[in-house]
Amino acid sequence: MCTNRRPDGNPKGSCAQKGSEALKDQLKKAAEARGLGTRVRVMTSGCQDVCHLGITVSVWPDGVFYGRVTPADVDEICDRHFARGEVVERLVVSDSDFDPA
Amino acid sequence: MCTNRRPDGNPKGSCAQKGSEALKDQLKKAAEARGLGTRVRVMTSGCQDVCHLGITVSVWPDGVFYGRVTPADVDEICDRHFARGEVVERLVVSDSDFDPA
Repeated sequence: MCTNRRPDGNPKGSCAQKGSEALKDQLKKAAEARGLGTRVRVMTSGCQDVCHLGITVSVWPDGVFYGRVTPADVDEICDRHFARGEVVERLVVSDSDFDPA
Repeated sequence: MCTNRRPDGNPKGSCAQKGSEALKDQLKKAAEARGLGTRVRVMTSGCQDVCHLGITVSVWPDGVFYGRVTPADVDEICDRHFARGEVVERLVVSDSDFDPA
């Protein structure tokens, strides 16, 4: 999960400004509460380069890239993706999101 | 690349204490100098959980995990792995490294 922080007022914003540090803790605790702590490593990352899509979460080795993740999405990511390997399609960033016209 | 930093004196040490912040900059610049900047995203990460193997570098989507990476390894990682897709075997962490007896 990106926890890059830019200075307040930067027009790009940043995932940390959107609350990603707390969201990372929430996701990690939710995974651990489900007994997934030894199988899933929730970790921070630097900027993932698509700041307008933050908060961003990349899941490896699955190659799944989630954007606009909020605290309301954490349980679903854990219960569906981490526990059952299902991609949460509504959060997946599309190619057009990457390069907005 | 892990850029986690623990306080000085922590027995685990940390990748940042081993110089990973500068190493990340070096790797990023080396990739860019080879014209790989649009294809390879060099980014920081939090702790990758095997601090005794630091400095650690995970390469995705390749699923390659390098340990004990030093400034002397940067050109080879760029020239062989990033440019040609060859794994630099001598840096790959083995299963026994993960769980030292």
